[in-house]
This record gives sequence, structure tokens and C-alpha cells, in this order.
Amino acid sequence: MSNGKSDDRALYYLDDLQAGQHFTTGSHALDAEQIKAFAAQFDPQPFHLDEEAAKDSLFGGLAASGWHTMGITMKLLVESGARLAGGIIGAGGEVTWPRPTRPGDVLTVESHVVEVTPSKSRPDRGMVLMRNETKNQKGETVQVMTAKLIVPRRPQ
Amino acid sequence: MSNGKSDDRALYYLDDLQAGQHFTTGSHALDAEQIKAFAAQFDPQPFHLDEEAAKDSLFGGLAASGWHTMGITMKLLVESGARLAGGIIGAGGEVTWPRPTRPGDVLTVESHVVEVTPSKSRPDRGMVLMRNETKNQKGETVQVMTAKLIVPRRPQ
Repeated sequence: MSNGKSDDRALYYLDDLQAGQHFTTGSHALDAEQIKAFAAQFDPQPFHLDEEAAKDSLFGGLAASGWHTMGITMKLLVESGARLAGGIIGAGGEVTWPRPTRPGDVLTVESHVVEVTPSKSRPDRGMVLMRNETKNQKGETVQVMTAKLIVPRRPQ
Repeated sequence: MSNGKSDDRALYYLDDLQAGQHFTTGSHALDAEQIKAFAAQFDPQPFHLDEEAAKDSLFGGLAASGWHTMGITMKLLVESGARLAGGIIGAGGEVTWPRPTRPGDVLTVESHVVEVTPSKSRPDRGMVLMRNETKNQKGETVQVMTAKLIVPRRPQ
């Protein structure tokens, strides 16, 4: 299981995954305090720290660090997304932020399996390309993250 | 300036940037407590939370969440990397983690300007492709993040 707690979700090995499968997470409500606390630690720029300073920035108002949106996305995936055998382990990925994440946003992640590729050199595992779209409460996409995940094959 | 404090670094507008320019940040020392605190909030998986559980994982021991390595990278870039006019604002990017980040690692970021592209539709800005390599104290690369940054042109 992915977080050490009891977990009712189905467990997916590489063999259980195929292109087109779809998963949806629970939600996370974001507020200005969380935005500022993350920014103070990991992205201390005025438009993530201070409402007044943010008005004069490209964002036109307080916005979450993109990496904060990513952290929340990861938490949602771990706690309520596809439960992968071995956990969610990424070799890498791509991200875009089509619009800012704002105080008051309620985020949910929709995931799609894009591609499943068994490893040629390592018969016990493979690579899964997963597209994770993070949406706000209006259904607007705030982040698209496509991850290359390492997933074990079902033991024989 | 990027963080609201007085700052001795040169300020770079789009016009001041060109392919091949190189920047190096200060360093950040990582320990097991930081790794677990980040994981508890944003990536609650056993191999980021617990030394014993991590032994049986693909990582073979406690490892930082890749998004924690990213957060530290971002902090280093904001505080001691290239000081960009308008701040470090990313439209998106790509990331890989060639090896895990471990407790005791001391991280530094080396950045290279890959490409500078003035916007055709917005004459006041452009896009900078920046490759950011995060290295540990042995000089081993733990993360490569190539970001598309929005950078303003120098006002006339």
C-alpha cells in the first residue's frame, strides 16, 4: 500500500494497467495561509507571499507557487489516486501551468494512463506514462503533469 | 527584485540573457527530518517517511520526494540564482531525477541559459529556456529541470 495505512483501493501492478484507464482523486481546499507558508519555505517571491505585492506582478494577485500546486497534486495522487504497487515512483515528467492557482481554489486531480511499456532489461517492472490534470472548483485546468512512473509487474 | 529584500545581484531582463550564460546558487543541507516533514505534507509514501520501510523499497533507504528536491532547487534559484526582472515565473518545464536525494546531501544548483526567444505577440516579454542541474556534495546530479521562464524586456 502507498501510505502504510489500511487502504480499500484496488492495487495496480503494471499488468493491470492499460492506456485509457482513468482515475479521479479527492479534493484539497487551498487558502492564502497555505500559499504563503509554502512560498516562505520553497518559493519566496512577492507574488506568492503578499497580496499587495502580487497585484503589481504578472499574476495580478496572490497565486500559489507552481511547485505548491504540484505538491498538493502529489498528495492527492498518493492518498486517493491510482494505488500503484510499489508506490508512486517517478523517473521524471513534464509540467505546464495553464493558469494560476488562487486562494480559495479547491483542487482535484484527474489521471489518465497514456502508455504502458514493460522494461526490456528489467523483467520485474515497466514504465507507465500517466497524464495528471489538476483542476479547480470551476473545472479549469491549473496544471498538467505527465509523469513517467516505474511500476512493478505482478509477481509470478 | 525577486524576494523583496535588498539584493546585490545583477538584474537580468530578457535583453541581458543569451544562450550559454551560466549561474550557480548557494547550497542547502538536507536532513532526514526535513525529508519526513515535506513527505508528511505532500508525498506521504513509506520510502520518504520511514527509514525501515524505505529499506524494502526501490530506493533501498530513506530518500527525499522528488518534489522536495524541486522545492529546495526553487528556493536556491530564488535566493541565489540568476536574478530575473519580474521574478522567476515558469510556464512549464521538464524534470528527471537521475538518482535519489538522501539525508545528509548538500544541494547546489547550476543553471545554463539554453535559448532566449522574444515573444512575437507580446513585445514586452519573451521566453527563456533554462536548464537547472541540482547536484549533491559529490558533484552527482540528482535532478535536471529545464524550465520555460517568462522574462520581461528592459523598459525603453
